[in-house]
Amino acid sequence: MSAAIQAQVLEANRRFYAAFEALDLDAMEAVWERSSRAACLHPGGAWLIGWEEVRRGWEMIVDATSYIEVEVTGVDAWVEDPLGWVTCVERVRGPDGQVAEVAATNIYFLGTDGWRLILHHASPVIRAGAFGAEPA
Amino acid sequence: MSAAIQAQVLEANRRFYAAFEALDLDAMEAVWERSSRAACLHPGGAWLIGWEEVRRGWEMIVDATSYIEVEVTGVDAWVEDPLGWVTCVERVRGPDGQVAEVAATNIYFLGTDGWRLILHHASPVIRAGAFGAEPA
Repeated sequence: MSAAIQAQVLEANRRFYAAFEALDLDAMEAVWERSSRAACLHPGGAWLIGWEEVRRGWEMIVDATSYIEVEVTGVDAWVEDPLGWVTCVERVRGPDGQVAEVAATNIYFLGTDGWRLILHHASPVIRAGAFGAEPA
Repeated sequence: MSAAIQAQVLEANRRFYAAFEALDLDAMEAVWERSSRAACLHPGGAWLIGWEEVRRGWEMIVDATSYIEVEVTGVDAWVEDPLGWVTCVERVRGPDGQVAEVAATNIYFLGTDGWRLILHHASPVIRAGAFGAEPA
């Protein structure tokens, strides 16, 4: 796996989280592949399939959120051209200072206009370390 | 996207859920790419990265589970050679008859020995239809 291509995928991932943290719908639109295969799942939610549903989901989040900080940790990125995928943990802090841990999978496709997000799956980390991370 | 290749990915996805439902660790091993990039997240859990952690997670589930039925619904599959990815909803029924809805992303890689699972991300559907699926 080329380190240069991996860096491109990581840069696309940073752009996604920058758009999320800025609650900037235009920047979010620029990050996604706006197609029928765009797929998104917010923590605890159901699948949103196709760009129309995906966009509406982000719109609802942006409308409902006054302020958010997203720290992205534990990032792993892999590439099999023309796809790259990232696993990470989002530490999401709201205006009340409460932090929620969210595990995410992000899949990017390298199209004619660069790496675009085609899948975002985010889920609440309820039992951190329940599997694997802790000694038995 | 070739329908024949999409059918191969769907067949790999069926094998994965058959191994899960049968609580068959050998079959589960045969489904996965046993590499450092194997990544798995069970509902509410944290990331398990690398085959050793992934295997241990399944082992714990198999050891802790006497019986399970897994109905796989809402399946969408896409392919960008050499990767295929599936989104679906697992309706998981335990011995007590209780059904839990779990949303999943599964990524498969076409290696020399066929399609192998390289990522499984499963998350609890807490607010079904919270985004997109219901009228506002």
